[in-house]
Amino acid sequence: MPSPIEFYFDFSSPYGYLAATRIGALAARHGRTVDWRPMLLGAAFKATGMAPLPMVPIKGEYSMRDMPRSARFLGVPFNLPARFPISTVAPARLVSWLRRRGGVDLEAAVLALYRAYFVDGVDISAADAAAGCVGALGIDSAEALAAMADPAVKEGLREEVEAAVAAGVFGSPFIRVDGEPFWGVDRLDQVERWLSTGGF
Amino acid sequence: MPSPIEFYFDFSSPYGYLAATRIGALAARHGRTVDWRPMLLGAAFKATGMAPLPMVPIKGEYSMRDMPRSARFLGVPFNLPARFPISTVAPARLVSWLRRRGGVDLEAAVLALYRAYFVDGVDISAADAAAGCVGALGIDSAEALAAMADPAVKEGLREEVEAAVAAGVFGSPFIRVDGEPFWGVDRLDQVERWLSTGGF
Repeated sequence: MPSPIEFYFDFSSPYGYLAATRIGALAARHGRTVDWRPMLLGAAFKATGMAPLPMVPIKGEYSMRDMPRSARFLGVPFNLPARFPISTVAPARLVSWLRRRGGVDLEAAVLALYRAYFVDGVDISAADAAAGCVGALGIDSAEALAAMADPAVKEGLREEVEAAVAAGVFGSPFIRVDGEPFWGVDRLDQVERWLSTGGF
Repeated sequence: MPSPIEFYFDFSSPYGYLAATRIGALAARHGRTVDWRPMLLGAAFKATGMAPLPMVPIKGEYSMRDMPRSARFLGVPFNLPARFPISTVAPARLVSWLRRRGGVDLEAAVLALYRAYFVDGVDISAADAAAGCVGALGIDSAEALAAMADPAVKEGLREEVEAAVAAGVFGSPFIRVDGEPFWGVDRLDQVERWLSTGGF
């Protein structure tokens, strides 16, 4: 069994969203599954000294133009939310919990949350809004809210994010294929060739 | 006459080098020429607060892996130079001078300098090494050295770089097509579609 593709993403990352809409089908074309790994860019920024894109002079303005253009290029619906960026601790906890819990289509859950934020403008930083996004997948809202408030779930995500950054994950999306790291939605073409050829 | 594609690059930028090997043919496919614009990333870093890739923790290590891999992906010869990054003021002055002077294949000059550094490991930060790279194009070495030491050439480049940063150029490669900005060799696919469709 080939190992799953590790897909790290932050829910406030437009490029993470764009890649999330592609990675499942890409993996399937090569007989792989995806391990959906929520992360928190804030922890990565602390380790690298980098800053959220909108806060970087000049580059931030460029990125505000590049984000919707990249979405149009890929044919993915995208509306820059009125509140951007946001804290993504709540939805990250939700997905971390669902990943450990099992019994749910995690790709569908991730895409429901991403689309709520980047298409419908829902502020998923609020736990109840995040819980509402996965209700249609059969996740009980009260159970999801309890999970997001559970100290064990909080600590679990904290440890996962810490381990990810310690292992070199510094951005979103960040993809690992059999140990090989790829950063950015613009590396999906390299990921595809890597999977086709076993490395180049 | 469609306007030329503005191509900004720093000679110490591996991604600038990779894009430089592609942009001429890409432009020609769409009946365009390239305006080769040397820039200095140091000036952009001052304006954005960004740092040279090798100096950024975690991301720097990733980039050392991504640079040669991206070169292999594109089929472009690449050897990370022993001295990297370097000051690129001398070769930037040389190309700035040649651009104003005319009468030379500027693409050939830029590629000769880039290949000397990123394939043959020549330290083109030295004015005489830079001059030597364009000798085969009929540029007299003494004339080139005099140009790089000419206060008017120095001031010309300084003004060009300042104007570029003021106009939003913050990285290398940075490409403008009819006013639309694209950053990175991984945006060449968007540049190509922009030229094909007139914008998307």
